Amino acid sequence: MKAHLTILGSNSALPAQGRYPSAQVLHFHDQSFLIDCGEGTQLRLSQFGIKRSKINSIFISHLHGDHIYGLPGLITSYNHYQRHSPLTIYGPEGLKKFVEYSVFVTGNPLLFELHIHEFDPDIPQVLIDSDWINVKTIPLKHRIPTAGYLIELKNPNLKIKPNVFEKFNVPKKERKSIQLGSDFIGIDGTVFPNALFTEPVAEPIRYAYLSDTAYDPDLVRIIRKFHTIYHEATFLSDLKHKAIETKHSTAAQAAQIAHDAQVGRLIIGHFSSRYTDLEPLLDEAQAVFSNTELAIEGRQFDL
Amino acid sequence: MKAHLTILGSNSALPAQGRYPSAQVLHFHDQSFLIDCGEGTQLRLSQFGIKRSKINSIFISHLHGDHIYGLPGLITSYNHYQRHSPLTIYGPEGLKKFVEYSVFVTGNPLLFELHIHEFDPDIPQVLIDSDWINVKTIPLKHRIPTAGYLIELKNPNLKIKPNVFEKFNVPKKERKSIQLGSDFIGIDGTVFPNALFTEPVAEPIRYAYLSDTAYDPDLVRIIRKFHTIYHEATFLSDLKHKAIETKHSTAAQAAQIAHDAQVGRLIIGHFSSRYTDLEPLLDEAQAVFSNTELAIEGRQFDL
Repeated sequence: MKAHLTILGSNSALPAQGRYPSAQVLHFHDQSFLIDCGEGTQLRLSQFGIKRSKINSIFISHLHGDHIYGLPGLITSYNHYQRHSPLTIYGPEGLKKFVEYSVFVTGNPLLFELHIHEFDPDIPQVLIDSDWINVKTIPLKHRIPTAGYLIELKNPNLKIKPNVFEKFNVPKKERKSIQLGSDFIGIDGTVFPNALFTEPVAEPIRYAYLSDTAYDPDLVRIIRKFHTIYHEATFLSDLKHKAIETKHSTAAQAAQIAHDAQVGRLIIGHFSSRYTDLEPLLDEAQAVFSNTELAIEGRQFDL
Repeated sequence: MKAHLTILGSNSALPAQGRYPSAQVLHFHDQSFLIDCGEGTQLRLSQFGIKRSKINSIFISHLHGDHIYGLPGLITSYNHYQRHSPLTIYGPEGLKKFVEYSVFVTGNPLLFELHIHEFDPDIPQVLIDSDWINVKTIPLKHRIPTAGYLIELKNPNLKIKPNVFEKFNVPKKERKSIQLGSDFIGIDGTVFPNALFTEPVAEPIRYAYLSDTAYDPDLVRIIRKFHTIYHEATFLSDLKHKAIETKHSTAAQAAQIAHDAQVGRLIIGHFSSRYTDLEPLLDEAQAVFSNTELAIEGRQFDL
């Protein structure tokens, strides 16, 4: 049940320094959600032993190649392995034509339903809202329309109050359904409301994916007190002019956002290919916000 | 000057078993030629220390994803690294739309000229014929239109006959141009034809790339006595029925073609993902044609 995030790719623009372009996978409730899909994502999934069959939803931030060029290969591999369950890909307008033509050109019809849900990244919207997960988009400031993703992982398990089952003589076979939210009906037909037995639901876990983006203080109020955020940190501060020019962020800027929003943890990624050693990026961010970690590929973060 | 071939990817259908999809690079005359471009080709180029700037021509056999999904990433990386020299990609009809839309969708205009030369794989044709290389296509038998490539590497260096420069009193500064094919003009204006000084050109080196294809005995007369051929060997013979059904070849069939055509050497590749160990494929082929080698990724073959 525990939610966790695995980094598949953390480089910007192209693969270099042994790092792959952007991709990460969030696992919760026996489902995996892929966020961005740079070239080689399917390779990383195998290398890190992540079951691709658990992925039913893919979220794309924007249509730069380092965030989408792994899609055609992943989709055709699903076909090769006889996938039958539907797959939904969310992303900006233009995605549908890119994906559909990439698949069409091979001459192999798809064996499963592929839904491509296009949206306008400039207008925040709710993409998924179920009993256990909520996914919203927010606009990021980049060179082309780009969406950040706000993901809320709801805790569907209620907490049972101490000794309460014994007090009300609840038979063992009834206990599971009470934990899932049902009322208890006694032998004489009396209804005991669920709230007698359970504590309020635990706080949902909130995760934000913010890549690619220029430094944007407007994000602070949106992600206030989030448990974990991933914020791009393409450059060190000595290249701040380059960050401004290309609408990316420095490590210090990513940390400033995390600090001002009082989040629990910051993960930085989307590193420029010029950096062989990532420690200076970590040092720069930690000087502003100490609970910062590097998006090292293969690393798994409990959420 | 020595020609050589480096295998970048040798798996079929998708990356698996640590193997990448089809791609190889032929280096000759200070130029590199990329043949097929599966997902991750740009990663393999960096891993094996091959300069991508030396590639000016790419040959695509057919439009299945495992032969083309590395193109968008490679092209946008050229752009990122400020390529200015033109790039030509040769391949079947449909390639242009796939490549152009993949690049267009990112919103970044290309900084270099990209020529996409589409052809009908069912009609053999000459794509390049220069002083030092000739590239022809031949139709292969696969599920969609597919071209094989016949590459002739001409030896542009003439061999100087023994002691001939001394005999005709040729000054040192003239010798280089004679070796490159010029006549010699004496002090009194007498023209000494090049043939006085040089031996006939060495035999060209002939290489054939034959992937993907069903077993096709018609290939034998076309590649007779070629120095080296790459022939796909997707399956072992116990899956011959699967090879027939999917229009691929077994290792024994690849070796039969090499044997009947009396070629110098056979390289087998395009292995099914089901094979972890490739030795049984090698054994099967060598039982029919002993000079067979496996297309191991990173391996370099002198031509």
